[in-house]
Amino acid sequence: MSYKNFPMVPRVIFGRGSFNQLNDILAIKRLSINAPFIFLIDDVFKGDPWITSRISLSYDDRIIFVSAKEEPKTSQVDNLVEDIILKSKERPSGIIGIGGGTLLDLAKAVSILITNDGIAEDYQGWDLVKNPAIYHVGIPTISGTGSEVSRTTILTGPERKLGINSDFTPFDQVVLDPELTKDVEKDQWFYTGMDCYVHCIESLQGTYLNAFSQSYGEKALELCKEIFLDDTLSKNDSADKLMMASWHGGMSIAYSQVGVAHAMSYGLSYLLGVKHGIGNCIVFEHLEDYYPEGVAMYKAMRKKHNITIPEGICANLSDSEFEIMIDVALGLEPLWENALGKNWKKTITKQKLKALYQKM
Amino acid sequence: MSYKNFPMVPRVIFGRGSFNQLNDILAIKRLSINAPFIFLIDDVFKGDPWITSRISLSYDDRIIFVSAKEEPKTSQVDNLVEDIILKSKERPSGIIGIGGGTLLDLAKAVSILITNDGIAEDYQGWDLVKNPAIYHVGIPTISGTGSEVSRTTILTGPERKLGINSDFTPFDQVVLDPELTKDVEKDQWFYTGMDCYVHCIESLQGTYLNAFSQSYGEKALELCKEIFLDDTLSKNDSADKLMMASWHGGMSIAYSQVGVAHAMSYGLSYLLGVKHGIGNCIVFEHLEDYYPEGVAMYKAMRKKHNITIPEGICANLSDSEFEIMIDVALGLEPLWENALGKNWKKTITKQKLKALYQKM
Repeated sequence: MSYKNFPMVPRVIFGRGSFNQLNDILAIKRLSINAPFIFLIDDVFKGDPWITSRISLSYDDRIIFVSAKEEPKTSQVDNLVEDIILKSKERPSGIIGIGGGTLLDLAKAVSILITNDGIAEDYQGWDLVKNPAIYHVGIPTISGTGSEVSRTTILTGPERKLGINSDFTPFDQVVLDPELTKDVEKDQWFYTGMDCYVHCIESLQGTYLNAFSQSYGEKALELCKEIFLDDTLSKNDSADKLMMASWHGGMSIAYSQVGVAHAMSYGLSYLLGVKHGIGNCIVFEHLEDYYPEGVAMYKAMRKKHNITIPEGICANLSDSEFEIMIDVALGLEPLWENALGKNWKKTITKQKLKALYQKM
Repeated sequence: MSYKNFPMVPRVIFGRGSFNQLNDILAIKRLSINAPFIFLIDDVFKGDPWITSRISLSYDDRIIFVSAKEEPKTSQVDNLVEDIILKSKERPSGIIGIGGGTLLDLAKAVSILITNDGIAEDYQGWDLVKNPAIYHVGIPTISGTGSEVSRTTILTGPERKLGINSDFTPFDQVVLDPELTKDVEKDQWFYTGMDCYVHCIESLQGTYLNAFSQSYGEKALELCKEIFLDDTLSKNDSADKLMMASWHGGMSIAYSQVGVAHAMSYGLSYLLGVKHGIGNCIVFEHLEDYYPEGVAMYKAMRKKHNITIPEGICANLSDSEFEIMIDVALGLEPLWENALGKNWKKTITKQKLKALYQKM
């Protein structure tokens, strides 16, 4: 048996207002005046001086605002990399991603593609990246994805939705400032929070579980319960704890795997462009056969917060469209093996998946 | 307000038997055939092929067996560094510490002193280290100290017991193989486990607490309860979980501080050479004014496992000896500030400390 030698984020700063320390953190990492820092920022912050006025741009540093309305794509990574290389006198000093999972994943992928030949889709899979990425920093502005600690960056490519999983993917630095999440709207708060919740359930119920993942997963699950079910936390405490839940939930799957919900949610995203957080919720509504207690608690949380989950999104799909979703989902073999064990192919069939998708 | 930009261990491998992967991990880190790996190993493993036969020594690699009967000293670090530099053709490829807190702290300190001029006592304090340490690996063989994740290495010097706290102190790689703890004898298991338990209490009750430290501290405390109070775990599960408790407990104090028990325990160690784990227990017996619930639970654990704690070790001390212990303890200002707040000097007096020490 061989164990993963897991790469952890080597630097983390936590605290309300810690974002103010970003300029000092970056200053010592500047390679030269011709090697800019590139800030990839969710375009909801465009024209928001509360964020942008605290970023001091020097020399050729640039902010690129990116929409997070769609899931990140390999082609989007390739375009960003081309733009950055063309407009920079030297290889950049670093990439800083500021936003949710989409922005964090883009920042990770761009930092990899700057030092690795070819295009992003070449690296979708496990351990295909050859060269270390350039210095990259992750700053979440919404909590739940775990992208801030993971060794993957999930991209939709021409052929599949699949992560670039590698030892070079994790951020070199993460800034955890819960204050940055203050303006997240309620639905999005819930959907992205449920990404963390689902990570915990899939990790804790998975066959890959070990004491390492378990301890992180249990803590993240406890925090999710405190945040989404109990009703005792102040707004700030709740935001602080959700940021830590996302972190621990990410650490839990980082050393194990996700499961059925993520596999099926990737199918929805690939075909229909459904965003990951809400996609997980749509799928999880129907997974009581696989995660009975987890689904029951999820439904209690959804009801408590009066969140509406879209229904009937697969109502008008053709057989060939179902086929595409099923192929994307079944292609994620480690997820199924974690969820159902080594003989998962005997348990899960295309028919079963189709019947599930038809309910959504 | 400024937050600590905390350096985390960048690589961790967890699992029973993961120690077998050490040779592969090191192979890619060898700088040259003249740059040896130096293994610092607790001398309880001398002649134990279960450990030593799994370490493949190449070229000028060396094992140095070190007794952990006494707390690590600055002079011991200086002697090891001199010996290693004299006998190595080139600067070593890395230092690997295999043992408990003593061996881990020695490995961290030696790796720092190889690249920093002067002697170990010059660096006791906060952020005095100028140059990055050489590559260093920590492999705990007993669980509880948290040294495997911390940014300190606690040394007894000529003038004080104090850590080398720096961003260069943490290990570059940690191997968490709970199987390595299988032969720890019961008393030692309890004393070192209580180091973790006390970390949790001191962190969770401290004024430096934040959501980051709290989430780690709460999880570690829960694991301690499961291991030391409940009676439902198999031997292996208990060992796996204690290794994770140590890790999370270390992360909790790493981002906050310890408190009264550690400050007073350092006094005992400095004057009387009391080992840290048992020293914490001796002190914690008498701290019900500061940590009422924590002390009550500690006593329940101690009773459950029929552990005897030495008494009367301060019975025959002179006034000047009490003075020495009190000065060492009070010198650790961040610990008192964490425990009692900014105005701690108004609450804690030499008389109070003396009265406490006299009970021990």
